[in-house]
Amino acid sequence: MKKRILIIGGVAGGASCAARLRRLCEHCEIVIFEMGSYVSFANCGLPYFIGDVIVDEQKLLVATPELFEKRFNIRVCTDTEVLAIDRTNKSIEVCDLKTGRMRNESYDALVLSTGSEAVWPDIDGIDLPGIYVLRTIPDSRKIRGNLANMKSAVVLGAGFLGLELAENLKKRGLKVTVLQSTDQVMPALDKEMARFVAQYLQKNDIDLQLNCQVKRFELNIDQTLTVHRQDGESIVSDAVMVSVGVKPRTQLARQAGLIIGDLGGIRVDETMQTSDSHIWAVGDVVEVRNVITGEWQLLPLAGPANRQGRLAAAAILSNEDQQELPSIYRGVQGTSVCGLFDLTIASTGVNEKTLQKIGYEHYEKVYLHPGNHVGYYPGAKPIHMKLLYDTSNGKILGAQALGESGVARRIDVISAFIQMGGSVYDLEEAELCYAPQFGATKDPVNLAGMIAANQLRGMHPLAKWEELLETHVQVTEDQDEAAQLLAFILDDPFTQAQLVDVRTEAEFLQKHIPNAINIPLDNLRDRLNELSREREIWVVCGVGQRAYNATRILQQNGFRVRNLSGGMQTYETYNGER
Amino acid sequence: MKKRILIIGGVAGGASCAARLRRLCEHCEIVIFEMGSYVSFANCGLPYFIGDVIVDEQKLLVATPELFEKRFNIRVCTDTEVLAIDRTNKSIEVCDLKTGRMRNESYDALVLSTGSEAVWPDIDGIDLPGIYVLRTIPDSRKIRGNLANMKSAVVLGAGFLGLELAENLKKRGLKVTVLQSTDQVMPALDKEMARFVAQYLQKNDIDLQLNCQVKRFELNIDQTLTVHRQDGESIVSDAVMVSVGVKPRTQLARQAGLIIGDLGGIRVDETMQTSDSHIWAVGDVVEVRNVITGEWQLLPLAGPANRQGRLAAAAILSNEDQQELPSIYRGVQGTSVCGLFDLTIASTGVNEKTLQKIGYEHYEKVYLHPGNHVGYYPGAKPIHMKLLYDTSNGKILGAQALGESGVARRIDVISAFIQMGGSVYDLEEAELCYAPQFGATKDPVNLAGMIAANQLRGMHPLAKWEELLETHVQVTEDQDEAAQLLAFILDDPFTQAQLVDVRTEAEFLQKHIPNAINIPLDNLRDRLNELSREREIWVVCGVGQRAYNATRILQQNGFRVRNLSGGMQTYETYNGER
Repeated sequence: MKKRILIIGGVAGGASCAARLRRLCEHCEIVIFEMGSYVSFANCGLPYFIGDVIVDEQKLLVATPELFEKRFNIRVCTDTEVLAIDRTNKSIEVCDLKTGRMRNESYDALVLSTGSEAVWPDIDGIDLPGIYVLRTIPDSRKIRGNLANMKSAVVLGAGFLGLELAENLKKRGLKVTVLQSTDQVMPALDKEMARFVAQYLQKNDIDLQLNCQVKRFELNIDQTLTVHRQDGESIVSDAVMVSVGVKPRTQLARQAGLIIGDLGGIRVDETMQTSDSHIWAVGDVVEVRNVITGEWQLLPLAGPANRQGRLAAAAILSNEDQQELPSIYRGVQGTSVCGLFDLTIASTGVNEKTLQKIGYEHYEKVYLHPGNHVGYYPGAKPIHMKLLYDTSNGKILGAQALGESGVARRIDVISAFIQMGGSVYDLEEAELCYAPQFGATKDPVNLAGMIAANQLRGMHPLAKWEELLETHVQVTEDQDEAAQLLAFILDDPFTQAQLVDVRTEAEFLQKHIPNAINIPLDNLRDRLNELSREREIWVVCGVGQRAYNATRILQQNGFRVRNLSGGMQTYETYNGER
Repeated sequence: MKKRILIIGGVAGGASCAARLRRLCEHCEIVIFEMGSYVSFANCGLPYFIGDVIVDEQKLLVATPELFEKRFNIRVCTDTEVLAIDRTNKSIEVCDLKTGRMRNESYDALVLSTGSEAVWPDIDGIDLPGIYVLRTIPDSRKIRGNLANMKSAVVLGAGFLGLELAENLKKRGLKVTVLQSTDQVMPALDKEMARFVAQYLQKNDIDLQLNCQVKRFELNIDQTLTVHRQDGESIVSDAVMVSVGVKPRTQLARQAGLIIGDLGGIRVDETMQTSDSHIWAVGDVVEVRNVITGEWQLLPLAGPANRQGRLAAAAILSNEDQQELPSIYRGVQGTSVCGLFDLTIASTGVNEKTLQKIGYEHYEKVYLHPGNHVGYYPGAKPIHMKLLYDTSNGKILGAQALGESGVARRIDVISAFIQMGGSVYDLEEAELCYAPQFGATKDPVNLAGMIAANQLRGMHPLAKWEELLETHVQVTEDQDEAAQLLAFILDDPFTQAQLVDVRTEAEFLQKHIPNAINIPLDNLRDRLNELSREREIWVVCGVGQRAYNATRILQQNGFRVRNLSGGMQTYETYNGER
């Protein structure tokens, strides 16, 4: 008997699952039900459609119902809402939204790919005209249609989509303000890395307001909106784009009594099977395991959704007469990337916030700021990187990077190492593409590994910026106060550190950390007698490399010494100067 | 007692070793002897210095003797030739080339980083004025100094350096001819992949002549050179750049009786130690193990040289009172990259030629031509890829790729997987950066893995282009002859294949393989009765994707079927049309 497989939701995971099902099984019946009018559309492209980077709406339709029909012999019911799942009878109740007619469809296997929906914050006035969300092609048409009347827009939320929207609205000539309720943009990054992005936004004339709670929206007589902040400030704007996150669309699953995880996503096993052995779920609607922490998480990204769709297809057909063995889903690393004007921001694995939240012990972090290629070839651009690793075995836990070139490449390489259980020692030895315009004999990935591996070998003790900033830095410009603080530090056994800046005198004079003393690296061997052996020495330079050499010299001369990883470049982000 | 470590050769491996030695041991004596006037110069940058991409010669000096002295407390003796090694007394005989004075220097440990030298082919007239080689800064000065008088140049050799030189000479306005003795450019690639590069060179108005043996050079009265080919043809040019390869500079090692490998490089163990336990060797001068084949090879690249230098330093000091454990050198994958105008060509692991040469059984290959990012985002460029893998376990053996964007990134990722012993199943599951301008939900790396994994699962049998071309294709335009050949094929039990092109009719009419029949994919299910069940079906499309879907349909309908991997795009390279 023909197996009948129904798929609810025809974008990303659902579409991918359907196509894979057909390739695995030519003789099953496969039907996709899609509430909207489009299947398999490029929702990641929507901000660029707003920005007129993508001009032709047709381009956003990756696959049409006709293609599914003709190429894959898959029936697609668009504008069709699934109202309920009857698990006992293995059938679903569907409503043709155009005719209002209802019918039941039976299944042998059911795939839920219902995706996620925008979170609408509970703010007074959120339903006013001029307040938009961008999730679908119709959403994008609505915004595009009104763009001519917009001179300004407020974007609510500084995640990926919010920032992509901000960029694209800016490109269309709007004055753009981004409001974010927390103290940083891009939650995938740690705060000090996010500061680079915040600085970059401001450089591109986007007004970013952090720690900003919106109290209410008000529609003015001239059809503009006033955004009232909790602190009494307000912003007048022609439009508001809401982009504060998404949540799994689990109504059907909940009604059907499927097990839902603590984060609100459908709970699935390693083959994407739900708590009902005839129902699978894939994409934004499920909770996935993080491969590093082992914790459940929501990860509404298109790449994982596609792979989950493929896997579910294999699992559904694992009893059929077909050759593929069912694979298991390995979990997610959370690799992601975002382009923002000329900047690329990417990350993989876990961030430090998460490690702290779950109480992960024995981890360490390094910062570096290498060029995307050798400095002697013109046009080198810095990549700002942070690498997190386990100090018990050197395993890579996560990486964050941003810069104008070569960023996705380095994060992808580190992602591959994480996937394979690689360590910082593996990064050291990685044999990567090198020619002057493409990299360096020591690629940024190698460098990250070398710095971390040297730390693990005990050759390169690292100091923490947080620790420094808690003690040394909170000083005023007032020399007396600084002197008092210094005296306090000298008295405190915990912070009895000498802060030594090993850059040149010229660099030091331009800017330095309060209370630092300057001994240029090239003079260090001759000036060891200026340093105390009683107190630990914390070394700083521009990006951490000269300070590493200084660390080696001092350590081997019997000093207790640590390097402030990433140098002044990292200091500035920690100190909030970026 | 202070350990005395002497290093012969101050570029790449030697310089890297010296700096690492100092970081590991503040109290050793370290001396570098360099025959030339510069240490640690950027020889990979020389072609770009010729091309005026790098304008300032000073930029090529990555580190100066003064820096080594001041920062690392390392003495550098430039213009100093080492004449002999006295292993018994652990000393070397050196000659100050400026004064002619000789002296002996004793060592506890000696590092040979003597590099490689250009191969000068044994051709009549090779010493004539106007014939250049590019290995050092003085070489590049000589060429730059005479560029104003050059309107044309012949580049002898189409490896990395030869092609980089060709590009840069072209950029300086010269008419450039590249002569290559073998039947392909860039030996790291397989021949069919190299054809893309050859085509690209010609598109950029560089005259490439393959299978070209030079008989002699002749200096003309007007100071031009005539390059006489063996076949009687000749080319007149203002200059000739010799770039036919390099060989390890092993004179010192040979004189000292160190063991030399079959390929002419110094034989070293996993800690870069030579057959003398007080002598180490690193860089172009050594033979290295290929991690995939286990065979010795020469790999004159800067990245491996640097890592070898670091490792040798650790090994030399492993008995010292320092904390680093000696690491072992893991061998090489041969990752490399070359930029050529807007094209990037990169590879990692072994190529098919090598697999065939060493008689490696059970490997398979796939071709693909994905975009560097999704097609709906403007500016997508194809990446032409070849992936080689072991059919017994799925392990990745090698990859080659070329295209205008995102090439190094994909090869680096595959390099990381090879390093970690990864398989095509790992490539399938790789979680890589995706946003519309950066990739696709199925990244080219994922796609390569999926195609290969589907082949291994038996879902996607592949046909070989070589086999097809031996049988079907060597036909004339003459319809009678084609019919005769077809009859022959039909009679031959080995080649009883039906060649089915599943592209649209329009595509098919534009160009197709002789004897192919056209059944567009979307009509295939309805036209199965046109196909014979007696003979195997070979399917072809544009890049292999539609043919994969066709393969699945046919296989599940009981046909014997195989896909011609990479479609017409790959056909054209095999058929020499590129």
